Amino acid sequence: MSTSTPDTPSAAPDSGLDPAIAARLKRDANGLVAAVIQQYDTGAVLMLGWMDDEALHRTLTTGRVTFFSRSRQEYWRKGDTSGHSQWVKSVALDCDGDALLVRVDQVGAACHTGAPTCFTDRELPAVSGQRPLD
Amino acid sequence: MSTSTPDTPSAAPDSGLDPAIAARLKRDANGLVAAVIQQYDTGAVLMLGWMDDEALHRTLTTGRVTFFSRSRQEYWRKGDTSGHSQWVKSVALDCDGDALLVRVDQVGAACHTGAPTCFTDRELPAVSGQRPLD
Repeated sequence: MSTSTPDTPSAAPDSGLDPAIAARLKRDANGLVAAVIQQYDTGAVLMLGWMDDEALHRTLTTGRVTFFSRSRQEYWRKGDTSGHSQWVKSVALDCDGDALLVRVDQVGAACHTGAPTCFTDRELPAVSGQRPLD
Repeated sequence: MSTSTPDTPSAAPDSGLDPAIAARLKRDANGLVAAVIQQYDTGAVLMLGWMDDEALHRTLTTGRVTFFSRSRQEYWRKGDTSGHSQWVKSVALDCDGDALLVRVDQVGAACHTGAPTCFTDRELPAVSGQRPLD
């Protein structure tokens, strides 16, 4: 952990997470890292959630995605209420340790609204860029 | 903005961002939202960055992705140093306003290490899950 990142807690919370993995996490002020959830076969980005050490531990060891809910301050295993489970295919931690890419097999709708993803039909007006011709 | 989210600043910073869009953002304690960057044609998740209102405004209006660097506390237009620009194809804001999905055409490597993505060859050991047969 770099001391130049003041909002990274210096110690990981107690959890079953492998200490070697815990040491690579760069957590935010709330002890969380971002988790991008992607459908493994189509490549669709389904949602973004948050994990603390214990949520990541459960995700790595159970085959099911578990988040930490910032609004409810509790663990949340995706699908336990809705039936819309996320079955883990792979998990990767990015180069600077603050983001996870979790590839899953999503059952049903990923979004609590019933939409296929949390980004579906939520586009903002944007100017499109075009790379220069080679 | 809900008062139940204590780490959401109550006022947006000065920026050129459309106030109607700014009102939908649920920013973290540092005034930022997460931005998932995805290659528009292959679906590869390239990286995760952070945007404040002004970075999002620039991303929506210039055709190029601009982040706010948490470590350097400055705006960072991807590619200005490396040449590895990200040309914007679309931008969507998720259902709860704290994550953006930015689909781009990436020039060269997305990761500062030279890897195609910031998640390339960074898999963690994970138990794979299998959805029940229908």
